[in-house]
Amino acid sequence: MSQEIPYKIYLSEDEIPTQWYNLRADMKKKPAPLLNPATLKPLTAEELSVVFCKELVEQELDENTPFIDIPKEIRDFYKMYRPSPVVRAYCLEKYLDTPAEIYYKFEGNNTSGSHKLNSAIAQAYYAKKQGLKGVTTETGAGQWGTALSMASAYLGLDCKVYMVKCSYEQKPFRREVMRTYGATVTPSPSNTTEIGRKILAEFPGTTGSLGCAISEAVEVATSTEGYRYVLGSVLNQVLLHQSVIGLEAKAALDKYGIKPDMIIGCAGGGSNLGGLIAPFMREKLRGENDYRIIAVEPASCPSFTRGKYAYDFCDTGKICPLAKMYTLGSGFIPSASHAGGLRFHGMCPTLSELYDQGMMEAVAVEQTSVFEAATMFARVEGLLPAPESSHAIRVAIDEALKCKQTGEKKKILFGLTGTGYFDLVAYQKYNDGEMGDYIPTDEDIQKGWASMPKVDL
Amino acid sequence: MSQEIPYKIYLSEDEIPTQWYNLRADMKKKPAPLLNPATLKPLTAEELSVVFCKELVEQELDENTPFIDIPKEIRDFYKMYRPSPVVRAYCLEKYLDTPAEIYYKFEGNNTSGSHKLNSAIAQAYYAKKQGLKGVTTETGAGQWGTALSMASAYLGLDCKVYMVKCSYEQKPFRREVMRTYGATVTPSPSNTTEIGRKILAEFPGTTGSLGCAISEAVEVATSTEGYRYVLGSVLNQVLLHQSVIGLEAKAALDKYGIKPDMIIGCAGGGSNLGGLIAPFMREKLRGENDYRIIAVEPASCPSFTRGKYAYDFCDTGKICPLAKMYTLGSGFIPSASHAGGLRFHGMCPTLSELYDQGMMEAVAVEQTSVFEAATMFARVEGLLPAPESSHAIRVAIDEALKCKQTGEKKKILFGLTGTGYFDLVAYQKYNDGEMGDYIPTDEDIQKGWASMPKVDL
Repeated sequence: MSQEIPYKIYLSEDEIPTQWYNLRADMKKKPAPLLNPATLKPLTAEELSVVFCKELVEQELDENTPFIDIPKEIRDFYKMYRPSPVVRAYCLEKYLDTPAEIYYKFEGNNTSGSHKLNSAIAQAYYAKKQGLKGVTTETGAGQWGTALSMASAYLGLDCKVYMVKCSYEQKPFRREVMRTYGATVTPSPSNTTEIGRKILAEFPGTTGSLGCAISEAVEVATSTEGYRYVLGSVLNQVLLHQSVIGLEAKAALDKYGIKPDMIIGCAGGGSNLGGLIAPFMREKLRGENDYRIIAVEPASCPSFTRGKYAYDFCDTGKICPLAKMYTLGSGFIPSASHAGGLRFHGMCPTLSELYDQGMMEAVAVEQTSVFEAATMFARVEGLLPAPESSHAIRVAIDEALKCKQTGEKKKILFGLTGTGYFDLVAYQKYNDGEMGDYIPTDEDIQKGWASMPKVDL
Repeated sequence: MSQEIPYKIYLSEDEIPTQWYNLRADMKKKPAPLLNPATLKPLTAEELSVVFCKELVEQELDENTPFIDIPKEIRDFYKMYRPSPVVRAYCLEKYLDTPAEIYYKFEGNNTSGSHKLNSAIAQAYYAKKQGLKGVTTETGAGQWGTALSMASAYLGLDCKVYMVKCSYEQKPFRREVMRTYGATVTPSPSNTTEIGRKILAEFPGTTGSLGCAISEAVEVATSTEGYRYVLGSVLNQVLLHQSVIGLEAKAALDKYGIKPDMIIGCAGGGSNLGGLIAPFMREKLRGENDYRIIAVEPASCPSFTRGKYAYDFCDTGKICPLAKMYTLGSGFIPSASHAGGLRFHGMCPTLSELYDQGMMEAVAVEQTSVFEAATMFARVEGLLPAPESSHAIRVAIDEALKCKQTGEKKKILFGLTGTGYFDLVAYQKYNDGEMGDYIPTDEDIQKGWASMPKVDL
């Protein structure tokens, strides 16, 4: 192609995908089903409908429909911040003096600051359509809670967010964004739920955990008329909604005849990575094209690279369904790290299955090298990235530097999931030289595994 | 035009203006010149060159050249975050149930979070071109300091920011963004300058002021080999660079045959408003077209609506040139408000002269009504605005509601200068019902005027 590639490749609003892509449809061996933790049998639509909206349950269980229509109302919302650009990182290429071409799909240009909004609006829309009054959820780092608050405000839906108490106190600004969008934000554990009161009685000084916040949000959803629970990652429905990232990215690259050699994304629960790679993985599954696909995880929480592939609880509270996934064990407690969005002991079942099939690679990187990459990127590309996204930046830079050595003109696409505007405490630690790296010992991981279900599934 | 207008009108990167527009060239009566505070004579290029880079001095003094080329290097930097979109606020229109069409030019989609980057890169570029080592500046709210840090990092220029001490302490996140971009951020007053040491000796507990920070930044620039001082607003050169906002906005609207009936912008020092209105004012000055042009200022600092048009000091320290402008007096101390970027006692001379000629209107709005508008806007348009920008939102909403009453289908364009991600303390106050309004008494303003130059100029 002799056509000059702009800094930012934008699609028009007409080119926002009209359908999401369901990765499972092209998998010959499907991901293992979620199990009811009581019966250890696959969860039925009926069981799931107590917790989730009906249409979302259908999407969750549908393994065979490859493309699912995006309702007009959701597409209209998408038009407020989508299509998001694919950016050619010209300045980074020049700075690294690499023959590689570096592209990134940028999902941070919305007030929630990340890709989470893509699924939040979908989940809120189906809740509204079902005539519900509101939704409940938990949030740790805060991106998901913010996204859901925005989507709920737009649709006039009540939104109750249980925010892990230490985040509630340490991230007051995230909390205020949610409140500005009209959400009720409760520090968890709280005395608004039975499980919260129980935990508070047992551990009066606790600063909470994601597992506990999930338990509270689910309790409220299932015990309050007109409410359902929603979740920002791990689930199949979330990967489905997030496929909009990859579909747009591929359409933008196709316009300029660019076929990426590798696709790199950070992986916590898997929502961004699963969305980004969706249409590329489709071609790979169908044998139409080949791509290197690289999941990047923190060395402090290395589910893919050091986990085992087995059924495990999704939450530390053990109230959620069992999922077959790469896991460090539901008892594994990741060290405090500044990429809160990647601190999940497991990984979504779909990506786990693809990894097990050898369809993708994984690499774990250390926090300080991630912030080194983030700072370099900020200075040369003019954009302050989220710590989570910076995991992908680190590996993209490493791959571009390999190309410098070999002289290969590889085309690298990575996902820049969000901005770091609410992560300045982390940047401050890095700027002050006070950031450390935390790598779990084999013993730590053994301990995590000890809490997994005892049955062989 | 029957063509459907998208949510976001983007120009292509090729359509980024190749020239800035110099508003003064089309003014029959030019703005009054800056005066040397010692001699009370118009400042010469030689005098200005001690403080500013040569090419910027030329731009500052050039009243006659209508279009000035934008160097390729600056246009390349612009391509990383420009063109910025003109957004059709469909959701706001629907929410207000107004027949008016509402458009906004959004300048917040870059890490500095505001339009300030447009001039920061230009000023840093000319400093680099002149072979300088670095630049110095002051920052209050922090947008300008952040923008300059980003531009300096990109060009490999040293950047020393004097940040008003109370902001330095209360806005640690802004400070960390600047540090991440490699800037040296010093709380002002500091013991790094003579004037700082003097002020600290006299007022040991002071939390600083913009006037004092300016004095320190200028002292360092003029006493350090290879450094110059740069400023983010008020000056003619800044308005020139910011014309890129209006030029892009007009080009985008022209594509769809949209002629705005009114153009609304917030006004602190005038950099955003002057940039936004530039090409529209050009047509108005040349008698080619008419537009209502509305400056919105905080009721707590109402330079246009309650100030007098006279020569005054630009800074409370009285070391900067004298400018003829609408002013509340250099001794006026605006009440603490959450729109730090609008807390300037004066107004840029060019806009002051245009206002005096009756070419534009001004309106003052109160803080709580501004945050009411900001919150409404955030919820329906999905974007959390900066408090400064929200002044324009308030008046745009008011005008749209007037249209609802009269049934007029007016076309409203306003400037959305930035995002509110670093202003959550203010939103929290509003969410908690603890925000007040502060309107100066006539006596307050009389006191401010008492510090103005005693001579009749």
